[in-house]
Amino acid sequence: MVIVEFIIVPLGEESLSGYVAEVVKLLERKGVKYQLTPMSTVMEVPTVEEAFDVIREAHEAMFQLGAKRVSTTVRIDDRRDRERHMEDKVKSVLEKLSGEGGG
Amino acid sequence: MVIVEFIIVPLGEESLSGYVAEVVKLLERKGVKYQLTPMSTVMEVPTVEEAFDVIREAHEAMFQLGAKRVSTTVRIDDRRDRERHMEDKVKSVLEKLSGEGGG
Amino acid sequence: MVIVEFIIVPLGEESLSGYVAEVVKLLERKGVKYQLTPMSTVMEVPTVEEAFDVIREAHEAMFQLGAKRVSTTVRIDDRRDRERHMEDKVKSVLEKLSGEGGG
Amino acid sequence: MVIVEFIIVPLGEESLSGYVAEVVKLLERKGVKYQLTPMSTVMEVPTVEEAFDVIREAHEAMFQLGAKRVSTTVRIDDRRDRERHMEDKVKSVLEKLSGEGGG
Repeated sequence: MVIVEFIIVPLGEESLSGYVAEVVKLLERKGVKYQLTPMSTVMEVPTVEEAFDVIREAHEAMFQLGAKRVSTTVRIDDRRDRERHMEDKVKSVLEKLSGEGGG
Repeated sequence: MVIVEFIIVPLGEESLSGYVAEVVKLLERKGVKYQLTPMSTVMEVPTVEEAFDVIREAHEAMFQLGAKRVSTTVRIDDRRDRERHMEDKVKSVLEKLSGEGGG
Repeated sequence: MVIVEFIIVPLGEESLSGYVAEVVKLLERKGVKYQLTPMSTVMEVPTVEEAFDVIREAHEAMFQLGAKRVSTTVRIDDRRDRERHMEDKVKSVLEKLSGEGGG
Repeated sequence: MVIVEFIIVPLGEESLSGYVAEVVKLLERKGVKYQLTPMSTVMEVPTVEEAFDVIREAHEAMFQLGAKRVSTTVRIDDRRDRERHMEDKVKSVLEKLSGEGGG
C-alpha cells in the first residue's frame, strides 16, 4: 500500500473548495480510501501506478471545469519493508507519545 | 489566521514516528492548535512569523536528537480577505458536496 | 508541454547524489529534456501521463538500488492557454526585471 | 549554510512572472545568493532563521502587490556534517556520473 498526499490548485482562482469537491466526487466514484485534511487530500492505494492514474484524472477534471493553468503537487510515501495503512502512521506517533507518558 | 502544513524529515532514518512525536510534544508545550495527518502536521497560528518560529524550533530539535541532515517542507495558506480556521476548509468542501446532493 | 519538478528521496540515506545520478541516467536514456537544480530535477514532457511514467520508473529504481522506503514529491505546472517551454519561465521573469531597469 | 527552495503563489492569478520578479528584486537588494529555476527559487543562506526572514518578507510583498490569498511553499535542506554550497549539490551528481563513464 502506498500513501499519497496531493494538492490540485487551478491558478486564477481564489476559492478552491468547489474544485476540491469535484476531486472528492471522483475519489468516491472510484472507491478510493481517502482523507480530506485542511491542506490536502491523502489517499491509500495499492500501487504508485494507481495513485498517478487517479491524480491524472483529477488534474484533467480541473481543465474541464474551466481552469487554464493547473498546479498539482503529489507526495508519495512508499514503504516496502512492512505492510501499513493510512491510519497506522498517526497511530504510531500517538503510541510513542502515550508510551512515554506511561513511563 | 494562517494555516500551515509542515513535514520534517531527518535523512538517514527509515522510521520517523519517534521524531514526529517530539514535534507533537513541542506543539503541545507551546499551546499551538494542530492536527496530525498521515502525511504531515497541520497547524493554525495567528501569523507567518509565529509559524516559522515554531517550525524552526522543531527543525532544530531534530539535530538535538542526533540527525545530521534534516529536510523540512512548509506550506503556508494565508488568506486575508476573510477570517477562517483550520476546520473551515474541510467543512467548506463538505458543504459544496452536500449542497449538490440535496439539490 | 508540461513542466514538472520532482524529488526522489530514499529514506535511511544521508547522501543522495548517487541516487540522483541513477535518475539522471534514466532521463538520458529516455531522451527527456531536463535540468538539475540544487534542490530537485525539472523536466519538460508533452503530457502529464508521460511525466508520471518517467517518475514511476525512477521511483522503482530506488528500490532496486536497495531502498526500503522512498518519498517522492512531484509538482506539475500545466498551462494550456499558451505553448511554453522550460526556459521560457525564467526568461519571462528576467524580461520583467530588465524592462523596469530600461525604463 | 542551508540551501532553501521556495515558491510563492498568489492565488487568483494565472501569470506569476511579475510576482517572481518582485521576489528577485528583494533577493538582490538583500544580497542573497540565489538561482532561479523553471519551477522555483533556490537560495543559500547561513541559517534557517535568515531563510525564513527573507521568505516572510517576500510573502508579505505579494499582499502589498494586491494578492488576497498567497500560498507559499518552502523546502529546507540543512546538512550539518559538512560544509557545502548550492553549486556543490549538482556538481556531486555530475561527478558520480562522470566517474562511471571513466570506468
